[in-house]
Amino acid sequence: MSATTSTLQQQFIAIRENKLFESFVITVIVISALMIGAKTYHIHPTVANVFEILDLAVTLFFLAEILIRLAAEPNLKRFFSKGWNIFDFVIVTASLIPIDESEMALLGRLLRIFRILRLISVIPELRVLLNAFVKAIPRMGYVSLLMFILFYIYAAIGSILFGQINTELWGNISIALLTLFRIATFEDWTDVMYETMEVYPFSWIFYLTFIFMVAFVFLNMMIGIVLETLQREHEQFDRESGEGEAGEVHWIREHSELMEQRLERMEAMLVEMQKNSKH
Amino acid sequence: MSATTSTLQQQFIAIRENKLFESFVITVIVISALMIGAKTYHIHPTVANVFEILDLAVTLFFLAEILIRLAAEPNLKRFFSKGWNIFDFVIVTASLIPIDESEMALLGRLLRIFRILRLISVIPELRVLLNAFVKAIPRMGYVSLLMFILFYIYAAIGSILFGQINTELWGNISIALLTLFRIATFEDWTDVMYETMEVYPFSWIFYLTFIFMVAFVFLNMMIGIVLETLQREHEQFDRESGEGEAGEVHWIREHSELMEQRLERMEAMLVEMQKNSKH
Amino acid sequence: MSATTSTLQQQFIAIRENKLFESFVITVIVISALMIGAKTYHIHPTVANVFEILDLAVTLFFLAEILIRLAAEPNLKRFFSKGWNIFDFVIVTASLIPIDESEMALLGRLLRIFRILRLISVIPELRVLLNAFVKAIPRMGYVSLLMFILFYIYAAIGSILFGQINTELWGNISIALLTLFRIATFEDWTDVMYETMEVYPFSWIFYLTFIFMVAFVFLNMMIGIVLETLQREHEQFDRESGEGEAGEVHWIREHSELMEQRLERMEAMLVEMQKNSKH
Amino acid sequence: MSATTSTLQQQFIAIRENKLFESFVITVIVISALMIGAKTYHIHPTVANVFEILDLAVTLFFLAEILIRLAAEPNLKRFFSKGWNIFDFVIVTASLIPIDESEMALLGRLLRIFRILRLISVIPELRVLLNAFVKAIPRMGYVSLLMFILFYIYAAIGSILFGQINTELWGNISIALLTLFRIATFEDWTDVMYETMEVYPFSWIFYLTFIFMVAFVFLNMMIGIVLETLQREHEQFDRESGEGEAGEVHWIREHSELMEQRLERMEAMLVEMQKNSKH
Repeated sequence: MSATTSTLQQQFIAIRENKLFESFVITVIVISALMIGAKTYHIHPTVANVFEILDLAVTLFFLAEILIRLAAEPNLKRFFSKGWNIFDFVIVTASLIPIDESEMALLGRLLRIFRILRLISVIPELRVLLNAFVKAIPRMGYVSLLMFILFYIYAAIGSILFGQINTELWGNISIALLTLFRIATFEDWTDVMYETMEVYPFSWIFYLTFIFMVAFVFLNMMIGIVLETLQREHEQFDRESGEGEAGEVHWIREHSELMEQRLERMEAMLVEMQKNSKH
Repeated sequence: MSATTSTLQQQFIAIRENKLFESFVITVIVISALMIGAKTYHIHPTVANVFEILDLAVTLFFLAEILIRLAAEPNLKRFFSKGWNIFDFVIVTASLIPIDESEMALLGRLLRIFRILRLISVIPELRVLLNAFVKAIPRMGYVSLLMFILFYIYAAIGSILFGQINTELWGNISIALLTLFRIATFEDWTDVMYETMEVYPFSWIFYLTFIFMVAFVFLNMMIGIVLETLQREHEQFDRESGEGEAGEVHWIREHSELMEQRLERMEAMLVEMQKNSKH
Repeated sequence: MSATTSTLQQQFIAIRENKLFESFVITVIVISALMIGAKTYHIHPTVANVFEILDLAVTLFFLAEILIRLAAEPNLKRFFSKGWNIFDFVIVTASLIPIDESEMALLGRLLRIFRILRLISVIPELRVLLNAFVKAIPRMGYVSLLMFILFYIYAAIGSILFGQINTELWGNISIALLTLFRIATFEDWTDVMYETMEVYPFSWIFYLTFIFMVAFVFLNMMIGIVLETLQREHEQFDRESGEGEAGEVHWIREHSELMEQRLERMEAMLVEMQKNSKH
Repeated sequence: MSATTSTLQQQFIAIRENKLFESFVITVIVISALMIGAKTYHIHPTVANVFEILDLAVTLFFLAEILIRLAAEPNLKRFFSKGWNIFDFVIVTASLIPIDESEMALLGRLLRIFRILRLISVIPELRVLLNAFVKAIPRMGYVSLLMFILFYIYAAIGSILFGQINTELWGNISIALLTLFRIATFEDWTDVMYETMEVYPFSWIFYLTFIFMVAFVFLNMMIGIVLETLQREHEQFDRESGEGEAGEVHWIREHSELMEQRLERMEAMLVEMQKNSKH
């Protein structure tokens, strides 16, 4: 049966990698998704029914494919140790839950929304992009922490100094944090500044240093991610191709070693010949 | 006749690559374009007439050049298989359509506007820039799809939760998508947030996570394009110059191969000499 | 005693590098920080007391560790010549100052806020990030000076031309500088422009050239920092790993030298052999 | 006398490169500049007089230095063929023009403002930055032209479609260009959009495609400049150091050539020896 499973699996992979099938599935998923949002518009019930059936067919195809993959794996634990398997499994299962709009309406509608994530199951290029995002998270985490420290210090100072002037903006640290985020997006920040400048004429120093520092930390975050991505892509290129400059250098390095060994042998011969000739 | 055609073509290329002629043509096109917009101002009719005639002359020059190029090509199909040929042909043809302002006024005026695209036919550097844009489209497409998924999920959640609060902003998914785009550009986004925070005090989580994720995806899009452009330019440099570091490495690789062969020959000689001396 | 000190120091380093201990300390510091801001909310006094004690314990741990480090160093001068030692010392000392909310309330509260900086003492990755920031300062300084010159010239022109139109925005150079900073963040800049365009219809040239030049200088600042960081990381990679392309090139260079010496020896032998055979 | 001139010139260079002197001159220029803006504040006349004299002294120092440089050059034409010489000469000359506030007040005040440009004459790092800017201009020019084409087409379409709705924003092409620039900076762009959406419900397509395309062109501009700067800095590093990876590769390439010649000689010897031994 294992042979049949692997044949089936290969057939499913072949269907999946078919560009025409991919385009068809993407179209069905996107239109189904848009139709949820377009509930309020008048769509002909026949059209709606056709797409509902096509949508179900796509989900069933994914279900079949995931079951085949599951059967091909020797044990469940190994199957669920891969993040993408869990992702696919949860999305397909959630898409199959029958939704009765009358009861648990909110949960039902939320479940339907997340069906659009099946797009990530279909398009391998989206997985590559998401993988890159996931790998950038640790670095992002530390920069976010640094940014939090910066925001916290400014929020605390702001709530102490400006708390009396406008409680809606600087009443306590959590409100002040939100106000600072607003300033960081440049959203009507001058209104906030002019208000406090009436009491403290030098409070523009507070706002300007904050904007400079946030821009600075944010810039470094950007550079950090660019660098990491660059390095990762570069390494991958090295390993896979062997054709570019790095590949040629690797070739030279290996052949230099062979040449060295050959030269060693030759020198040994010459030394012996010299000895013999002296005899 | 083919010889005459190629001579003519070379003459046209020579005229085109003349920097003075290029500057003259650019000036005529830009001034003609600005004059369409300046219809409402009072321009002396003589000046307007002079530029109208110059504008026609430029178009006729392009027409002549494109006909020569067409004649030089063995068959029509091959001529129209190149994107730039189609682009030039359509622009020149559209520029020649006589426009009577009285009838079909709107179409006529739109046609006149697109005459400015002749600039791209004149300046080769703009073609290089546009080529780079076209090559970046596939990668852009996948990032846009990922962005659409993100926008769609947030729009659906937003329309479900906030639909009752403000129908003009969150009434259905398509309106919510537009509102989210507005938030992504930081345009009065705090007004939108403060409104929903009155009902759901924790709805700032919705806005802040959305802004963070959009910035993150957008950053990656930027990096993706930077990386692709970098790699493409690098490869081109490698192929064309052979002078930089990559060129030197290539030289070393080829000569290492020659040295290895020479060493092989030398070792063989030494081995034979050793044999002979033992005899 | 020096041996005991170094053993103690190693034990402290071991505790510090324990990921569980790190997470615990981070949690205590962040919660303590948030509790300062949440003074106005109702937190159960027991919870508040527990965290106050934990917070003190963390500070005492840092104090103990810093004293051990101080004892390990031969003299005080060398200890305080390292920037991070001064930073840690000041933060820990300031955290220990007993705060009586009644007297010197403002200073006391500010001191409590800066306790969050202990996070930088705990997490080595944050120190790496901060180091990168500090190294980027000199380059930032020159770009800021260039930006100041640009702002100053525009502010002076603006205050001369528009000073009569709106004294609140263009009254003198310092106010004009603030207005220009606002324009640089695109905050309601069109309102400022439309106002002056009523008097000087061509004043849009002033705003557009300013926005273009600021964006240009800012872009170059960004690129400058990216370049410096890239180069620094690249060099560090070179020195530390020796595994990538740069490492392989270095290997080849060294072995090429050895091969050259060997070839020199071999040629000398051959020359001698030739001489001998002629005899 | 030429010897005296060159000695004098060296002395001036020595004074200039003195970091203390540089800081002093920067302070004088910046304070003088700020004092022009601070005319309205009450500064003690003695302080103002002292800085006026110091400011004049700095200008006279620059004048002396530039005259020495001029004397050292064999002829005037060669001196004025260097851009920086012209820049220094114009700034110093303009700084010396006596200003009587009563007559030609506006021109006089403008001349005083540009005295701040002497900072660029003092600080060599600012010259390096400005050089980088100047070199980036050609590339910037082509991207600006592409951006103009994009703006022009959208402005023309906008003025045709929306001209009747709001003449203040879309009345003619030049006004529409300004409105589009405003939209590109995200400044209250939704107000503009909502207004036209009442007449043309699908006009959001106009705004969204415009924003996407401008962001795209702008991104490429940024990348273009980054790439050029990267390449330029890289080449300079190659030429100057010879220490990094590129330097090592260059070393290997040259020594590979020497090794090849040596091997050629050795092979020739071996061939001859083989011949001799056969005799």
